[in-house]
Amino acid sequence: MTTATPSKAAALLHARYGDAAPPLGPVNEIITHILSHRSVRAFLPRRLPEGTLEMLVAAAQSASTSSNLQAWSVLAIEEPAHKSRLAELAGQQDFIRQAPLFLAFLADHARLGRVGAARGTQLEGLDFTESYIIAALDAAFAAQNLMVAAESLGLGCVYVGALRNHPEEIAQELALPPHVMGVFGMAVGYPDPAVRAEVKPRLPQSVVLHREHYGAAAEPDAVAAYDATLKAFSAANGMGAADWSTRVVGRLATAASLHGRERIREQLRHLGFELR
Amino acid sequence: MTTATPSKAAALLHARYGDAAPPLGPVNEIITHILSHRSVRAFLPRRLPEGTLEMLVAAAQSASTSSNLQAWSVLAIEEPAHKSRLAELAGQQDFIRQAPLFLAFLADHARLGRVGAARGTQLEGLDFTESYIIAALDAAFAAQNLMVAAESLGLGCVYVGALRNHPEEIAQELALPPHVMGVFGMAVGYPDPAVRAEVKPRLPQSVVLHREHYGAAAEPDAVAAYDATLKAFSAANGMGAADWSTRVVGRLATAASLHGRERIREQLRHLGFELR
Repeated sequence: MTTATPSKAAALLHARYGDAAPPLGPVNEIITHILSHRSVRAFLPRRLPEGTLEMLVAAAQSASTSSNLQAWSVLAIEEPAHKSRLAELAGQQDFIRQAPLFLAFLADHARLGRVGAARGTQLEGLDFTESYIIAALDAAFAAQNLMVAAESLGLGCVYVGALRNHPEEIAQELALPPHVMGVFGMAVGYPDPAVRAEVKPRLPQSVVLHREHYGAAAEPDAVAAYDATLKAFSAANGMGAADWSTRVVGRLATAASLHGRERIREQLRHLGFELR
Repeated sequence: MTTATPSKAAALLHARYGDAAPPLGPVNEIITHILSHRSVRAFLPRRLPEGTLEMLVAAAQSASTSSNLQAWSVLAIEEPAHKSRLAELAGQQDFIRQAPLFLAFLADHARLGRVGAARGTQLEGLDFTESYIIAALDAAFAAQNLMVAAESLGLGCVYVGALRNHPEEIAQELALPPHVMGVFGMAVGYPDPAVRAEVKPRLPQSVVLHREHYGAAAEPDAVAAYDATLKAFSAANGMGAADWSTRVVGRLATAASLHGRERIREQLRHLGFELR
């Protein structure tokens, strides 16, 4: 650990929590790296060095997976025309076109189904909601490892939940067989230094961390403080003037607020996930 | 990067993939750390240093979260009697009692609901499957950051999917309000050096990583090779002689293979997650 690490970590805690930051505890360069995460949505037109994707996938596969089922896959898209079609299906987000690499993280029950078929067994257990949860969690653990690894190489990343905007069209575009579904995407590339990406403030730990039992007594004051923090942060970064509570309400008030994703249960069934 | 890093990373790739390991690509100490993950299920009776939990939660909150909704919480359990009751509900796994810290990662729609209520709005969007997926993914991204951070401090960790064995009893034990659910747990502590934990082999990248479109042509041979690898690994580590395919079939063949978790959809509804 370099001597600069503790002061860097303290500054990152302050960026994340403002005055609500906890005192600096045990820290090292890996934790400092994790604290420094910011989502990147503007990329240089520069390809990743050879062998990078494979190292990132090795990091992803090093994450835990439920009962070692490995119920996920990752699909790497690098062809510009292909990325462009995915950008159209995933919220018209131009950074998907910019990024040299777009990853679709897949809930993959098809591979498990093939393994069962090779042993003469149809895997009824895959039809249950539990098995979808397993696949989504496996994909997320893997993806987060991949993101931390990518960022350590100087790359920037952002998750793309909009991969769930049109799950059936995405499945067609990526030639996914039944029982495979794009859970989320990730754009990966070299950050454009002309577009600053800041460490985003989060809710105080008093609201997110519970001890022994769930409690929310101190929450109203903490949320009010965070509302003010996020409002100032958003204004300073050209992201509008709404506070957090307003954004939460706007995102979740009605079925229509989900912008089509309210249909995902039906779409999952069409893709072969019964969610019994 | 120390000069030892590349050879250490190459050895870890070999432990993870055997002869199917990809060539060593760009690497550094953070990637090497991630590659070295192994689940730890035996802990020393030694508490975590003061301030550790808060730094780990800061790492967790530094992960991305869908639309900054932060739809998760984490509940830290350290009281021995409390851990013991959770161990009973979560598959009687004794390492939960051993570990000084047990974390329950929560899908938390209740906080969002309170934010809406404070603005006079009932958040109908929370009733949809999409909103449960968001909460589960948020919890998983956060947890994986926490695990990587904990391991960098010399701690060992293991996920506990068995937190989903009895979701309603877990909710009662942890005093969770409606619209909060324990998605998975994590035991954290100092590894018992008397119990070796090995890097677990994973499926070859040829099976998990797809390019441009999904494909499975080379899968049967790759799975057969992995079956042999995992069988040898399991035998060498006292984990039985079954190969991977046999384990997959055993875990997923029927509803009963899920050992109660086939009921999770109904239980989620009881806890307030409509999954529409």
